[in-house]
Amino acid sequence: MVKINENYGQLQGSYLFSTIAKKVNEYTDAHPEKKIIRLGIGDVTRPLTGSVISSLHKAVDEMADEKTFRGYAPDLGYDFLRHAICENDYRARGCNIDEDEIFVSDGAKPDSGNIQEIFAEDNRIAVCDPVYPVYVDSNVMSGRCGTYDKSTGRYDKVVYMDCTAENGFIPSIPKESADIIYLCFPNNPTGAVVKRSELQKWVDHANETGAVIIYDAAYEAYIKDPDIPHSIYECSGARECAIELHSFSKNAGFTGLRLGYAVVPKDIKRGGVSLRDLWARRHATKYNGAPYIVQRAGEAVYSEEGKKEIQGLIDYYMDNAAYILGGLKKAGYTAFGGENSPYIWLATPDGMTSWEFFDHLLGSANVVGTPGVGFGSCGEGFFRLTAFGSHENTREAVDRICKL
Amino acid sequence: MVKINENYGQLQGSYLFSTIAKKVNEYTDAHPEKKIIRLGIGDVTRPLTGSVISSLHKAVDEMADEKTFRGYAPDLGYDFLRHAICENDYRARGCNIDEDEIFVSDGAKPDSGNIQEIFAEDNRIAVCDPVYPVYVDSNVMSGRCGTYDKSTGRYDKVVYMDCTAENGFIPSIPKESADIIYLCFPNNPTGAVVKRSELQKWVDHANETGAVIIYDAAYEAYIKDPDIPHSIYECSGARECAIELHSFSKNAGFTGLRLGYAVVPKDIKRGGVSLRDLWARRHATKYNGAPYIVQRAGEAVYSEEGKKEIQGLIDYYMDNAAYILGGLKKAGYTAFGGENSPYIWLATPDGMTSWEFFDHLLGSANVVGTPGVGFGSCGEGFFRLTAFGSHENTREAVDRICKL
Repeated sequence: MVKINENYGQLQGSYLFSTIAKKVNEYTDAHPEKKIIRLGIGDVTRPLTGSVISSLHKAVDEMADEKTFRGYAPDLGYDFLRHAICENDYRARGCNIDEDEIFVSDGAKPDSGNIQEIFAEDNRIAVCDPVYPVYVDSNVMSGRCGTYDKSTGRYDKVVYMDCTAENGFIPSIPKESADIIYLCFPNNPTGAVVKRSELQKWVDHANETGAVIIYDAAYEAYIKDPDIPHSIYECSGARECAIELHSFSKNAGFTGLRLGYAVVPKDIKRGGVSLRDLWARRHATKYNGAPYIVQRAGEAVYSEEGKKEIQGLIDYYMDNAAYILGGLKKAGYTAFGGENSPYIWLATPDGMTSWEFFDHLLGSANVVGTPGVGFGSCGEGFFRLTAFGSHENTREAVDRICKL
Repeated sequence: MVKINENYGQLQGSYLFSTIAKKVNEYTDAHPEKKIIRLGIGDVTRPLTGSVISSLHKAVDEMADEKTFRGYAPDLGYDFLRHAICENDYRARGCNIDEDEIFVSDGAKPDSGNIQEIFAEDNRIAVCDPVYPVYVDSNVMSGRCGTYDKSTGRYDKVVYMDCTAENGFIPSIPKESADIIYLCFPNNPTGAVVKRSELQKWVDHANETGAVIIYDAAYEAYIKDPDIPHSIYECSGARECAIELHSFSKNAGFTGLRLGYAVVPKDIKRGGVSLRDLWARRHATKYNGAPYIVQRAGEAVYSEEGKKEIQGLIDYYMDNAAYILGGLKKAGYTAFGGENSPYIWLATPDGMTSWEFFDHLLGSANVVGTPGVGFGSCGEGFFRLTAFGSHENTREAVDRICKL
């Protein structure tokens, strides 16, 4: 008799964004005449840029000709893409990363869910609270989180690092020992950022304790301030302790195209074993690469034209972020983020809970956001809005919220 | 101090196809003038067909326009694709499968590697020997296989089902109890097939014992004989015990495009829990869908024009299979498969081991095949050739082999 993975029984409710989608569907079924504006899930709205589209068409044509057809991709991803990533995202920033430390994937979400597999079950993870749910849920599925306590909204084996208005949503290095530390800057959901000198302290801490940092850099393209690192490898010693995850979703709009990459430096060794080699084995055994045409699209992002277009997308969304932040503040809301990040994190008004504010915003303004508590108990009383809408919709949504 | 997943230490050597690639690279570096013909890895060589290409171009254009741009895909895959799959692969064959039991993915390899996650660690798996390495390796990584014994080439907790020339490479139902039974027909690597009445016995066995069958149907498009089932759901009771995996790689040539799907019927319940719901949760948490443009390409495979084109690809490769099988037999080899399958499984001549024959074929005929022992100890003394080459290369390779 087959036995199921009982760890799934410890998962709480369904996945946050599935729950939101269900609530929104129920509302639109009941009120089909209402125009809903979605600033909830972090999905982009701008189309793919010209050089990405040209590159896709060209690659599709290659697939139509037996002389240029491509079958299985190389295990780590195509050289042309890993080279472009290495040159632009690392060497140009003075980071010492080799091309064979870059693993092309179908996105930062799968990578952030899968990376825990190369670690033993009895490691202790540390996460920010609030946090992107995938880090915790993937570890719950692997039995690393222990038992869920409904009264605290927390798992008993997880080290939670509180991110509150008091600490500017920047966690302190935990006093409890942790083996795998998940960090994400610019942060999802709070929009908080850390300076290079602050991130250096985390790297030093990991190297002192033997911990590994999983650094989610999915939003690095939104950074404007030169003191804020785009990569954890801007810190010295990070090659010995940090894995970095990247996405093409939020800079180049690839949410529906699916492309990302993980960096696992050869210098991270534990018990004499290279984590890079473990991840290479996992990648080769359970994955078969991102589509050739999508890898070519990724390459186009790094072309001169591509870079200009991507900056145009970032500017477009950051214009939204400024509008949201300005509008909310003018209307008396307390709001954070939105300056080096596409996320705006606001305190719910009038003592409402996050879900109460969600329902209020959906029902009264027909605007969809994400309840902060969906990201952890410290998110209660907060709410996330994203800058990924169109200018028109974003302005309309903010104007509706301000009129409430 | 982080601890690594020690189960990886039980993995043997590197992944089979990576090892072959390394050997071939070394040979071509040493003999750059030689024309190598690859009939080893199961990669296709024909370009994508016209309707798939048109569909890709159209979908790419949609991604260029904000009105038709698509971001994150629905968790299970787009309705249009799941509908086409359900109509053509199931309803047309009289199989009772619902669209919300179909999970679109980036291929049968990831699905076959990931599916074990929804089961407890202390299940016992049963696999054919020889077998596609991913089934075993993904379970080794999860600690389900025990210790590797070099003398037998086997893991002590795995139930091996011998597939030999004596039993026509069709395994017997194991006497030892097994909880998760992996089956693949038409088989990779042996090319063996089972009749519907034979497969029914496995389904009955699973329902009697509470086991779950993971049925890999990646090669079903190559079936000609009407007594051979295309889907395990052609057997009665399979909805209660079988998960089926499909690929677009081998019928439509999507090895470089990446698309597949898993079917997890709602009727498989264990301990009151629906496996379909567990897989849905896994899918939503750790995966973000196949690219929209690739899902549109998959839809095109089921169009009237698409079906004709796919049949053309199958016929093309099966013409190769017939040439290989005929040539080998004429040259005195004992060979199997190749009739309802793109794989030809031959007995190595002169008592050579599989790897000796690999080196011999690479060195003397410049032909790359796959050593049978790479698929398990019962594969020793056998060798796999694939029908996925071009007509010209396949003929040349067979002619070279026959001259040895």
